[in-house]
Amino acid sequence: MTDLPDHLPPVLIDRFAEIVGDAYALQDQDDIAPYEAERRGLFGGKAALVLRPGNVEEVSRIMKLATETGTAIVPQSGNTGLVGGQVPDTSGRQVILSLSRLNRIRELDPLSNTVTVEAGVILENLHAAADGIDRLFPLSLASQGSCQIGGNLSSNAGGVGALVYGSARDLCLGVEVVLPTGEVFDDLRKLKKDNTGYDLKNLFVGAEGTLGVITAAVLKLYPKPKGRESAWIAIETPDVALDLLHRAGEAAGSSLTSFELIGDTPLEFGLRHIPDARNPLEGRWPWYVLLEISSGHSDDDARQTIEAILTEAFEAGLVQDAAISANIAQAKEFWRLREGFSDAQKPEGASIKHDISVPVASIPEFLRLAAVEVERVCPGARVCCFGHLGDGNLHYNVSQPVGMAPQDYLALYSAMNKAVFAIVRQLHGSFSAEHGIGSMKRKELVETTSPVSIDLMRRIKAAFDPAGIMNPGKVL
Amino acid sequence: MTDLPDHLPPVLIDRFAEIVGDAYALQDQDDIAPYEAERRGLFGGKAALVLRPGNVEEVSRIMKLATETGTAIVPQSGNTGLVGGQVPDTSGRQVILSLSRLNRIRELDPLSNTVTVEAGVILENLHAAADGIDRLFPLSLASQGSCQIGGNLSSNAGGVGALVYGSARDLCLGVEVVLPTGEVFDDLRKLKKDNTGYDLKNLFVGAEGTLGVITAAVLKLYPKPKGRESAWIAIETPDVALDLLHRAGEAAGSSLTSFELIGDTPLEFGLRHIPDARNPLEGRWPWYVLLEISSGHSDDDARQTIEAILTEAFEAGLVQDAAISANIAQAKEFWRLREGFSDAQKPEGASIKHDISVPVASIPEFLRLAAVEVERVCPGARVCCFGHLGDGNLHYNVSQPVGMAPQDYLALYSAMNKAVFAIVRQLHGSFSAEHGIGSMKRKELVETTSPVSIDLMRRIKAAFDPAGIMNPGKVL
Repeated sequence: MTDLPDHLPPVLIDRFAEIVGDAYALQDQDDIAPYEAERRGLFGGKAALVLRPGNVEEVSRIMKLATETGTAIVPQSGNTGLVGGQVPDTSGRQVILSLSRLNRIRELDPLSNTVTVEAGVILENLHAAADGIDRLFPLSLASQGSCQIGGNLSSNAGGVGALVYGSARDLCLGVEVVLPTGEVFDDLRKLKKDNTGYDLKNLFVGAEGTLGVITAAVLKLYPKPKGRESAWIAIETPDVALDLLHRAGEAAGSSLTSFELIGDTPLEFGLRHIPDARNPLEGRWPWYVLLEISSGHSDDDARQTIEAILTEAFEAGLVQDAAISANIAQAKEFWRLREGFSDAQKPEGASIKHDISVPVASIPEFLRLAAVEVERVCPGARVCCFGHLGDGNLHYNVSQPVGMAPQDYLALYSAMNKAVFAIVRQLHGSFSAEHGIGSMKRKELVETTSPVSIDLMRRIKAAFDPAGIMNPGKVL
Repeated sequence: MTDLPDHLPPVLIDRFAEIVGDAYALQDQDDIAPYEAERRGLFGGKAALVLRPGNVEEVSRIMKLATETGTAIVPQSGNTGLVGGQVPDTSGRQVILSLSRLNRIRELDPLSNTVTVEAGVILENLHAAADGIDRLFPLSLASQGSCQIGGNLSSNAGGVGALVYGSARDLCLGVEVVLPTGEVFDDLRKLKKDNTGYDLKNLFVGAEGTLGVITAAVLKLYPKPKGRESAWIAIETPDVALDLLHRAGEAAGSSLTSFELIGDTPLEFGLRHIPDARNPLEGRWPWYVLLEISSGHSDDDARQTIEAILTEAFEAGLVQDAAISANIAQAKEFWRLREGFSDAQKPEGASIKHDISVPVASIPEFLRLAAVEVERVCPGARVCCFGHLGDGNLHYNVSQPVGMAPQDYLALYSAMNKAVFAIVRQLHGSFSAEHGIGSMKRKELVETTSPVSIDLMRRIKAAFDPAGIMNPGKVL
């Protein structure tokens, strides 16, 4: 590899450019820069070219040429991924394939409760389109104003709605994928049940663009709840949260559409750094639960369910204080606070983040063990933990001690990862619950996953992408 | 292949038998016979041997020896599959690997809402175990008294609970699989979210034993509904059923846990042949809907939801008559009738059955078009259609005309299939919604699926089972 020049031959660049037209083949460094690095600047490299095809046919021709010439392709949609899966390496030889111009909603089908969308549709636009036909598309992420469906599917995005509705994978009925050869795998079916051979769809979903390029998908829509209410609940311990989760599940069943566990540190950071943030309660407690109840009937019905849950929980001595949203605006404030925690960590200095999952029942034990390890690795480091308790999935972020030099803290990155991941392994969890592997966690994948699994994954990669041109350096 | 003898060498049989012990290596024809054919006698062949391993280690040793010696293995659990996927061919050289002794429930975890079960656990026993810790395992099939979890997963079984809870695939969090080499792929995780590499689990689920042997799985449990009510509703047309489905979904959301469409012919056959069957209504109508509402609160709450749906539907002129189950016993009667339709067809003579799905919105069109084609292929043939409208999945069974010789009718098998599947294709549906491919539908799979898909499936098969010993002759 060291013998290769740090650029693609100009004649090859011209051939790629010809497919999409010069206006959509970005070569100027200023134009390329926003695609080369992700928004936090943690991952990125140097691309030979950014191609912005306008239709599937152009994607197909790009991939065909890439296979012929052995050119590495990095698919990218909203560029909001958190593990470096969507940005090129530093070789200068990789071509970014931006899906953002494939942004049509091809069909809304209210009777079948499906929507057929292209990979470049922004998640929030899909929400609006579903809302327009009185339906719900339940995938909900902090980045929904800029992330795009192709990336949501390729990373199998999770978010706050996954408790009942599932992750991106669960919401996807069919895909259209351009294979490395340029062939189009057209599996855009609206079928909930289809047992005709191997499940190819779920291989492409979550493959982070290493097996093919997802260009469109059929996604599930749901009846829009007639009512929703949220409650912000103060509790003493994660064990109590687990008890509360169980009771809320018993009382509300699938009406319990979110159940988030929040530490006091993210609240503290949020109140300090999120504009106009207000503490939903009068005082402060060690932990909080933010839950949402959806009702097929009305807001009143959702509120009654929440009140019933809280009354029982107060009587059982589980709850210290609680606020039920008085109206939609207040509910939105609760959720704006929750979605702002990640950004609110930035002004607090360097952070080492973990996106872990363990069996739901093991969450309290994880938190106990991890707190000890964090303090051992870096005394004074501040655990800023929040996440989707109902899914066993926590964002276990650790901010630097106050006053420490950020670079000194980041020097502990590997040690901190290692300590946290060891506990995850001990509890049979996952070191990447919803963000994926990308380039960031390749080493962990190989080190912590069984050789049998890795071998199977490599066989799939070799079978689907024998030339190794699909997003090389990612996942495996 | 014609040069091979019609048996395995005795010395090889002895080596296999040694792994499980003579008591569990069935060689006597009387002992083997029940494993060689499925219960209807439609598919089956001749096995060299039936092995009944007692643990995963023995399964592993069997597969290792099979790989070394190129011996074909046919995994089998409850032997209730409907497409011949679990029975051997006629060569006499295939070995049946029965999973039925792997019948332990390894762990019930009410806090994580999971159960870890072995492949040989009978579905009904799993229902009972979940019930014992106040949980629901929602997979529900007519064959649940004898089908086993390994087969449910390998065929991605659907059933009447799939509307909200999904098919077997959706209920499975992790699997333990013995690969053709004997290696164990241990992925028995209780995680709802785990984005670490390719989705291997969903390849094995639905692969009908052609990629490996599922020996155990972690499955999801749900809070047990506090109340359930069912209603049997008479309607004029499938279009009305679709309208009713939409309204019920709007009113009940995920509390709408079943929505079955039933023709008058299956009711007629059921009343004639199911012991003690009673018509839920006074009169007879062209179509019926059987729906179930589950409530997190109470039977009363479920009943109120049904009443609200029916009141609105009566006012809209959609419903001719309706009966709400007065008690659990009556609800069970409704469902016993529904589950008995398949058996009730037998005394009516030969039947040509189709397990199809189309987009939900296309169900009425499918029924219109198919009725015309059935009459064209065989005038007087009786469409006995029932199924899961909410999933777009119908059992489109066609009984012979009264008085026709069964063999004359069955001579039309291919013509009937072809006519029905052509409509399915036209409506972008699936010719095998929930029963799988097995040996029965291999030809259709190759003929009707795009060459790109088939090629990808073949690459997976070659990558996972290069020696071709896993259930050869099935799926691909």
